[in-house]
Amino acid sequence: MKRIDGRDSRSLRPIKITRNFNRYAEGSVLIEVGNTKVICTASIEDKVPPFQKGTGKGWITSEYSMIPRATETRTQRESTKGKQSGRTMEIQRLIGRALRAVVDLDALGEKTIWIDCDVIQADGGTRTASITGSFVALVDAMNKLKEKGAISKLPIKSFVAAVSVGIVGNEKLLDLCYLEDSNAHVDMNIVMTDKGEFIEIQGTGEGGPFSKSDFSELLELAEEGLNKIIQIQKESLGDISLEIGVESDENSCSEPQQV
Amino acid sequence: MKRIDGRDSRSLRPIKITRNFNRYAEGSVLIEVGNTKVICTASIEDKVPPFQKGTGKGWITSEYSMIPRATETRTQRESTKGKQSGRTMEIQRLIGRALRAVVDLDALGEKTIWIDCDVIQADGGTRTASITGSFVALVDAMNKLKEKGAISKLPIKSFVAAVSVGIVGNEKLLDLCYLEDSNAHVDMNIVMTDKGEFIEIQGTGEGGPFSKSDFSELLELAEEGLNKIIQIQKESLGDISLEIGVESDENSCSEPQQV
Amino acid sequence: MKRIDGRDSRSLRPIKITRNFNRYAEGSVLIEVGNTKVICTASIEDKVPPFQKGTGKGWITSEYSMIPRATETRTQRESTKGKQSGRTMEIQRLIGRALRAVVDLDALGEKTIWIDCDVIQADGGTRTASITGSFVALVDAMNKLKEKGAISKLPIKSFVAAVSVGIVGNEKLLDLCYLEDSNAHVDMNIVMTDKGEFIEIQGTGEGGPFSKSDFSELLELAEEGLNKIIQIQKESLGDISLEIGVESDENSCSEPQQV
Amino acid sequence: MKRIDGRDSRSLRPIKITRNFNRYAEGSVLIEVGNTKVICTASIEDKVPPFQKGTGKGWITSEYSMIPRATETRTQRESTKGKQSGRTMEIQRLIGRALRAVVDLDALGEKTIWIDCDVIQADGGTRTASITGSFVALVDAMNKLKEKGAISKLPIKSFVAAVSVGIVGNEKLLDLCYLEDSNAHVDMNIVMTDKGEFIEIQGTGEGGPFSKSDFSELLELAEEGLNKIIQIQKESLGDISLEIGVESDENSCSEPQQV
Amino acid sequence: MKRIDGRDSRSLRPIKITRNFNRYAEGSVLIEVGNTKVICTASIEDKVPPFQKGTGKGWITSEYSMIPRATETRTQRESTKGKQSGRTMEIQRLIGRALRAVVDLDALGEKTIWIDCDVIQADGGTRTASITGSFVALVDAMNKLKEKGAISKLPIKSFVAAVSVGIVGNEKLLDLCYLEDSNAHVDMNIVMTDKGEFIEIQGTGEGGPFSKSDFSELLELAEEGLNKIIQIQKESLGDISLEIGVESDENSCSEPQQV
Amino acid sequence: MKRIDGRDSRSLRPIKITRNFNRYAEGSVLIEVGNTKVICTASIEDKVPPFQKGTGKGWITSEYSMIPRATETRTQRESTKGKQSGRTMEIQRLIGRALRAVVDLDALGEKTIWIDCDVIQADGGTRTASITGSFVALVDAMNKLKEKGAISKLPIKSFVAAVSVGIVGNEKLLDLCYLEDSNAHVDMNIVMTDKGEFIEIQGTGEGGPFSKSDFSELLELAEEGLNKIIQIQKESLGDISLEIGVESDENSCSEPQQV
Repeated sequence: MKRIDGRDSRSLRPIKITRNFNRYAEGSVLIEVGNTKVICTASIEDKVPPFQKGTGKGWITSEYSMIPRATETRTQRESTKGKQSGRTMEIQRLIGRALRAVVDLDALGEKTIWIDCDVIQADGGTRTASITGSFVALVDAMNKLKEKGAISKLPIKSFVAAVSVGIVGNEKLLDLCYLEDSNAHVDMNIVMTDKGEFIEIQGTGEGGPFSKSDFSELLELAEEGLNKIIQIQKESLGDISLEIGVESDENSCSEPQQV
Repeated sequence: MKRIDGRDSRSLRPIKITRNFNRYAEGSVLIEVGNTKVICTASIEDKVPPFQKGTGKGWITSEYSMIPRATETRTQRESTKGKQSGRTMEIQRLIGRALRAVVDLDALGEKTIWIDCDVIQADGGTRTASITGSFVALVDAMNKLKEKGAISKLPIKSFVAAVSVGIVGNEKLLDLCYLEDSNAHVDMNIVMTDKGEFIEIQGTGEGGPFSKSDFSELLELAEEGLNKIIQIQKESLGDISLEIGVESDENSCSEPQQV
Repeated sequence: MKRIDGRDSRSLRPIKITRNFNRYAEGSVLIEVGNTKVICTASIEDKVPPFQKGTGKGWITSEYSMIPRATETRTQRESTKGKQSGRTMEIQRLIGRALRAVVDLDALGEKTIWIDCDVIQADGGTRTASITGSFVALVDAMNKLKEKGAISKLPIKSFVAAVSVGIVGNEKLLDLCYLEDSNAHVDMNIVMTDKGEFIEIQGTGEGGPFSKSDFSELLELAEEGLNKIIQIQKESLGDISLEIGVESDENSCSEPQQV
Repeated sequence: MKRIDGRDSRSLRPIKITRNFNRYAEGSVLIEVGNTKVICTASIEDKVPPFQKGTGKGWITSEYSMIPRATETRTQRESTKGKQSGRTMEIQRLIGRALRAVVDLDALGEKTIWIDCDVIQADGGTRTASITGSFVALVDAMNKLKEKGAISKLPIKSFVAAVSVGIVGNEKLLDLCYLEDSNAHVDMNIVMTDKGEFIEIQGTGEGGPFSKSDFSELLELAEEGLNKIIQIQKESLGDISLEIGVESDENSCSEPQQV
Repeated sequence: MKRIDGRDSRSLRPIKITRNFNRYAEGSVLIEVGNTKVICTASIEDKVPPFQKGTGKGWITSEYSMIPRATETRTQRESTKGKQSGRTMEIQRLIGRALRAVVDLDALGEKTIWIDCDVIQADGGTRTASITGSFVALVDAMNKLKEKGAISKLPIKSFVAAVSVGIVGNEKLLDLCYLEDSNAHVDMNIVMTDKGEFIEIQGTGEGGPFSKSDFSELLELAEEGLNKIIQIQKESLGDISLEIGVESDENSCSEPQQV
Repeated sequence: MKRIDGRDSRSLRPIKITRNFNRYAEGSVLIEVGNTKVICTASIEDKVPPFQKGTGKGWITSEYSMIPRATETRTQRESTKGKQSGRTMEIQRLIGRALRAVVDLDALGEKTIWIDCDVIQADGGTRTASITGSFVALVDAMNKLKEKGAISKLPIKSFVAAVSVGIVGNEKLLDLCYLEDSNAHVDMNIVMTDKGEFIEIQGTGEGGPFSKSDFSELLELAEEGLNKIIQIQKESLGDISLEIGVESDENSCSEPQQV
């Protein structure tokens, strides 16, 4: 059975990562996943939030927004409403957690990296595209720190990428576009490293519960897609890819399960 | 190895559900899970939000808050800050989704049920206790509608309850208290029905990634706990329990996987 | 003439004070006045607001809130509205003033005591119950400071309690429940010490003016009720009661009228 | 003993009421009480707030503000802070209650009168000056309605005015200026009608409790002052004064104490 | 004397207009002016703001924002601050006025066109680029209305474009980049039509006053630049350009000075 | 052709400047321009905003507001809405820029002067009256600094005043009142010094574009009016006028065009 954009159920949409999209940010990427387009920038600030002060550790935080006409009908601007929606908060918390989990915050030192994800066109999967793209922007920003001599190695323990899977009708689908997403009764977002380990598994049955076997099949579908996406990240980053995960040998004490 | 409160790794904390805790709400429960205490009320309103108007379907929405000294050190009141935190929004969205997934919104008709979860003491697991307790309050509110003749059967397809599991050190633990939760490097919240199906699976590796086998073990631990919790809900509800899930025979078209 | 709950005009509703209701707060009380139930906590913070810095004096501040279904119909949460109502502000300012008036802020030293009053069920008189209950929580918090050696005596000059009185129809009533309160054309809240002195007298004739003799009779009714309420506070506090007001001998310079 | 501005303890400051101060408002007054200056306007709107709709009754509401340099040092503008302070809310609620108590809302019909009190110079007693001045503005606005034929009589049952009294040192003083007010340990605001009846009595002992006899003396001092202030209102209003209170004969059912 | 980017004083930066940049908006443009890049979308809504209801006339409104890292150092997001800055409001009001002045709102009918300008990279002149780009997006949106038969002609009376000029040191410069702009002591933004008439002239001497002759020279410099910019708009729009201004024959009554 | 208030097209409305209108502010003025009345105060604060700290330079900032009934129909208070409108922000930014341009911020030293403009009656031209009046208040505040010995000369380089001009029908009019302003299709606000130099020129063609010759005629009309207004400022200030502009000899390096 063909999907609305002609893909089969186990196919990703075409992914394009454009590095150095913005001339000011330390790291910046335009990621396109089908019709979904997100500008991801990584900005370095030489201080940390109050709760992290004096710990010697860095921090990574994220903000997410959509331009009003990223969506099929115009969405009201959050700056006009005077507050961020629950959906926005949920997404930016997820992006921050996903990236922090693969960064050695001790090695980064007392710096904050601000990840800004601005969706300029939204066709489903904006949060997962944001994670995938932000990781590349983050690596570029880290690399700039290294080139300036502020750090000696990239303090990044793994690649990280994200994808959505879901059940639409009776079909289990990889990488849902907006129309599929809004018809799915089960919807999952999976964040995984290049070592096949998970950082985040979020499965929701808005339209009704799902069984354990459904869940397992969806998870496998996501793994398959994520391995391809991480390959695309590696191609985009070229030689810098080789420096990721290198430092984890010496710094592995706090995550014994990674050995 | 004993846990800080003397439990073993597969044990729940004592759970106590007090129905009709509040004299005004259509349904109201005080749920105590160890030292965690949440007041859950279900209030019926005779209209639906704008996006649901004219559909003939009802809606369930949830709000969550903690009194300032629910926590070990005082937390600033969100009404004084002028906005809800991302954490609050995330939790109340989760509660709403969990309850909507087991309710037949068509059979409810154009009514909104407001679920308010007010944490008066927090020792970990407030969001899962909120779901478990709110379900009971929701059933009581529905029953009141039935007694008034507004509906003929309880429009509830399944029981639903929630629990947390996580990895602390190398131990996989059920039902984390606050101290365990803040030391966990993997943390999961599971929402499940009495039919063993899932509504929400949220696993997060803040302290680093987790493997698929870790994930599977945690999920099983959660299932075991949830079956016990649902049993406690049933005892609390007594005879009303028998009316839950009955109507799903005729109304099962949109969720074929429930048969 | 009997009142709606069977009391006569000069009777209080049953009052129950449960100390140490919350395991984290330095002082905490559940006060029940008929169907009105308020959780009062006293939290100690080791700094004072900017305007008090460097004076060597402490501060007491209060916040008040109702859970949404404390009321007969659901009230919108102030954190969702993004601001506190005028009523809330008025009440929390009143509670703060009442408690500050009986505390020796010099002897307390540069500490802030946060009084949080969270109404979990409201049947009239929530602000007066808040004052009565908060006083007990405050004493417990002060006692904890004393036990830790941070202060040598309880810096509390008097007991303080509050009650409402009003005119409903032609009857002057003590301790109005909600239904009486909403039908009263004259409504007063009185805050008094155990020495029979007043801290706050607030009389309002929303439904039209009242005469001086009406006012005097209401005041006497309140005094009679307050003496009983303070007796209940004393019983609840037990031996600690004996330490209240003791230090005022040496520290009485600024309030000559207390001699 | 002379006061800082040379008055004796039982003297009012000079009061000046300028009617028709603003060319647009239906009623408008500049009231000067010593150095305190408040612009009071009464604006008529042809609808009522939602809770009053369909009742046939009108409503009176009030807003209060100070220009930033009304005060000795500049006060931050509430529109810049994004919210009104508790003090502002308390004051505007008081003004609204005071005026509503003397108006026959049934006779007014479904109209809202907006009372705006903007303090352009503040030397104590701004809330009482606001009530005294707003009453005159309100009468003028009502008179305009009558001239247009919208109502047949002024729906005003009594004159109403307000004044502050307090204890500074050992002296009981009438009409406190700012310096006196900030040194008072007992502070009262009294709202009274021309019939010697009270609408609001608010006494506060911030600096410590006060006795019943102190209270009685202060109340008498206020009454004496208020009778003079109402005389000044009458002179300011001239012949219109004669129309106030006339209609209360027929409409006195709900306030039997006025007969 | 060469400018920092090698231009002479009377040169524009390269301008590139990409139409149909966004797949959802009725009109959408990416405009690049040197390093300044703005996404302009025009969204059609089938209703007008309250003040325009029932007039039969349409409305055009604009919102403007910058993504956080559009600027050299990261700018805080306005949705996180909870309000728009004065600068943002000023700019979006300017864009709205500029476009409304060339549209026949009567011919448009009761529709609102939302113009969203989202700056993704800012190197000076973002407000003028927004006007120039939005005009093209607006024409495309109008054309879509025409193709659907909702209107019979494009209700657009003229082309409109904008540019900045300023004095830096002693030089009068066209089209300032950010570094020039921040060193200018006189700064002007000019909005002009293809008929050489002005819609907006804003000249500011932050660094000190300017003479009338300086002003005249700057205005001429702007005119020269604007004629070139409008030429670029015409090339971008191609044949649609020919339909602009056509309807003004019959509809010229309210602007006699345009004949 | 006579205007609605009987003036001819080149006439100003009567202007009255009352100095020392407020007893607390360092400088304060009531300016009346026809029926437009604005209270302007200048308040000195001994610190500067963060961006100016450590520069040795001062700052001037402005806030603008209207009391609700300054206008023909009541305008909602911005403190109740919780935010300032775009119009308010635009105006207060304009006032700030206009005054900063004539002040030697180096000579002022690290102080902030807060200019508050509170409109108590609005009949058009409130922003220009605010500038004209604030300048006088600013001079008075500066003079107070000089009298206290904080500065040795008035750090003011020129007089500054503002006026509006516009085209109504086919007439070019000076100093528009509200009714004229709302019918103008071209509207300009001009800020000029006593040396005939401009600080701000803002021309807007809301009702359609305007030609260069229209613009030139309006500018001349404004100049003529502004020379008269500055004369009124000089008369109001009396001898202090002679001290304005004196210090510019030594301090003229940064504005060579003023020689």
